[in-house]
Amino acid sequence: MKKLKSRLDAYSDAVIAIIMTIMVLDLTPVLKDSWPAYLSLAKEVGIYGISFALVANMWYQHATAFEEIEDMTYRIMVYDFLFLAVLSLTPLATNMMASNTTRTTVMAYGILNLLLSFTFRLLAKAIVHFQYTDKSQMRQVYGKIYGAQNPLFMIWTAVLLVIAWFWPFIAVWFYLSYPVRDLLFT
Amino acid sequence: MKKLKSRLDAYSDAVIAIIMTIMVLDLTPVLKDSWPAYLSLAKEVGIYGISFALVANMWYQHATAFEEIEDMTYRIMVYDFLFLAVLSLTPLATNMMASNTTRTTVMAYGILNLLLSFTFRLLAKAIVHFQYTDKSQMRQVYGKIYGAQNPLFMIWTAVLLVIAWFWPFIAVWFYLSYPVRDLLFT
Amino acid sequence: MKKLKSRLDAYSDAVIAIIMTIMVLDLTPVLKDSWPAYLSLAKEVGIYGISFALVANMWYQHATAFEEIEDMTYRIMVYDFLFLAVLSLTPLATNMMASNTTRTTVMAYGILNLLLSFTFRLLAKAIVHFQYTDKSQMRQVYGKIYGAQNPLFMIWTAVLLVIAWFWPFIAVWFYLSYPVRDLLFT
Amino acid sequence: MKKLKSRLDAYSDAVIAIIMTIMVLDLTPVLKDSWPAYLSLAKEVGIYGISFALVANMWYQHATAFEEIEDMTYRIMVYDFLFLAVLSLTPLATNMMASNTTRTTVMAYGILNLLLSFTFRLLAKAIVHFQYTDKSQMRQVYGKIYGAQNPLFMIWTAVLLVIAWFWPFIAVWFYLSYPVRDLLFT
Repeated sequence: MKKLKSRLDAYSDAVIAIIMTIMVLDLTPVLKDSWPAYLSLAKEVGIYGISFALVANMWYQHATAFEEIEDMTYRIMVYDFLFLAVLSLTPLATNMMASNTTRTTVMAYGILNLLLSFTFRLLAKAIVHFQYTDKSQMRQVYGKIYGAQNPLFMIWTAVLLVIAWFWPFIAVWFYLSYPVRDLLFT
Repeated sequence: MKKLKSRLDAYSDAVIAIIMTIMVLDLTPVLKDSWPAYLSLAKEVGIYGISFALVANMWYQHATAFEEIEDMTYRIMVYDFLFLAVLSLTPLATNMMASNTTRTTVMAYGILNLLLSFTFRLLAKAIVHFQYTDKSQMRQVYGKIYGAQNPLFMIWTAVLLVIAWFWPFIAVWFYLSYPVRDLLFT
Repeated sequence: MKKLKSRLDAYSDAVIAIIMTIMVLDLTPVLKDSWPAYLSLAKEVGIYGISFALVANMWYQHATAFEEIEDMTYRIMVYDFLFLAVLSLTPLATNMMASNTTRTTVMAYGILNLLLSFTFRLLAKAIVHFQYTDKSQMRQVYGKIYGAQNPLFMIWTAVLLVIAWFWPFIAVWFYLSYPVRDLLFT
Repeated sequence: MKKLKSRLDAYSDAVIAIIMTIMVLDLTPVLKDSWPAYLSLAKEVGIYGISFALVANMWYQHATAFEEIEDMTYRIMVYDFLFLAVLSLTPLATNMMASNTTRTTVMAYGILNLLLSFTFRLLAKAIVHFQYTDKSQMRQVYGKIYGAQNPLFMIWTAVLLVIAWFWPFIAVWFYLSYPVRDLLFT
């Protein structure tokens, strides 16, 4: 499946590029001077920027993972599609959480975020196990893909969900600031 | 037409990537807490997931078929465009069938589905006949493209159309479950 | 500019793929059984199919022309962008002409069509003159790009504009049938 | 990061292609003969053309800059995403400025334009410093990327912002005419 692998690479990149850029269509142009409208547009642009950073980030991790292999399995392809499907929903969830910060929307975003981590981990694991058998090599590759990510990351993600349930207005700031921070300071 | 063939490969992939991802724009964000709105969004997301799986599936079959050849004919290109045109209409038909399950919409989906199978078969046949002359080799390649598809598949597709006419509420479940099942259990 | 040339190839293809597929967003899903709504959707699908064929056709001619060269000039790039800009407007013009067939819309389509031919000819000429100096070779390449196009094509295009002015309801049929005919019977 | 670099090239091009073409969705088709509607569409098409030219221009400069390198750093990637994020907002800003020419919209466009120049310069500088150490070589490469751009360009851009504040109706003509002029007469 070598030919298919390089084709899936280009295909996934096209899908990610569309996810990243299509959100610009949701910005409502202000066609009559009105400060509330400008402020609301500014907020939309901010949310757009955060989604943009999140998708950019995932593109980088995704490309770094697939760089490891030159061939693939059907299973890797299915995991890739799962990951892309979840990723394509994040701009919508970010928008909903930022426009209407309630327990429901923040929890929904949190769960989607968890699903995104989970599907990406599934994908990364399938890729690494396809290529390597040596444990120490595997660790090195995971390091490349995830960067200097905290080992407590998964626990923290779960804790954040609990915060989202009880104090959605606090959790939203963590969720909104992560993508930009991750992109700029990896 | 070798250069044109590899260009058509990339072009078709771009078109399929757009078909797959553009549907996300049809999801209506919930901007005010309301359970009926959340449920309706959840339903939309489900339909989106099914369309996503269907397109992912067709991408795989399409890429597997084109992997067989390194050159092509004008006829193969025309069949490819026909296939892409029909494929681009499936998300719309899925949406209409799932939002408003009536004889008309289920039959329309069924017919589109038949057309999709038909145009893809036309394409696959043209590709295989362009490359191979030996019957047993042809069979092997068809096996690769279609997977372990039931030989009675075409008959079943026709029967399903009859079911769609008399019991649209039964047919819709078959139609909605197939894409996900095909992608996960090939 | 060799690297830039192959990049422009991929870039133009991406733009054409988007032009071709984005139109599917303009189809209005029928969410409540109503025959007038289904008929109007069927009409929209027909127009979509015609635009799809027109863009497919131009993709083929465009790819065939660029296949001739491995390098390019800044001027060729500018002509390519001009061609893409005009092409991106054809789905809109087709839609307007088919939904509301009046002298204005048919003339507008006709003029856009003329502009499309003109910008493509500009592009093709720049490509051919960049690569060849021999007249007979040039003729051969033009034959490849345009197919067995009538030498009176340009005159006919002008005559059609006159028909569009006096009898828009006749001209519209020529304009709507050409893309499909061109794609299928080249 | 060599593999990632060529992947980022294709990815950026896909994003730019989407930015360029997606704007066509904002054009409102005229479905009932009405001269004011046609005039307003003509204005929209003009604005679309200007955005198209601006994006085409940036594609060229962007591709020329990345042609210089075969490898990259994480920082170059981040600058590239910053540049793409700003670029993706220009069609919206152009639209707002042209539809509703007031001090606010013209200033907003001017600032975005400044940001676009700035992020691109950041990117170009990172690329050039990654590849070259010799000052005279650097100058030559900058010349290739920016063309025969006036050395006073940055000062002029700042002056234009002042004009936008006091006489937005004058600044708008400079802003609208630049992209086309830059593309055609470089």
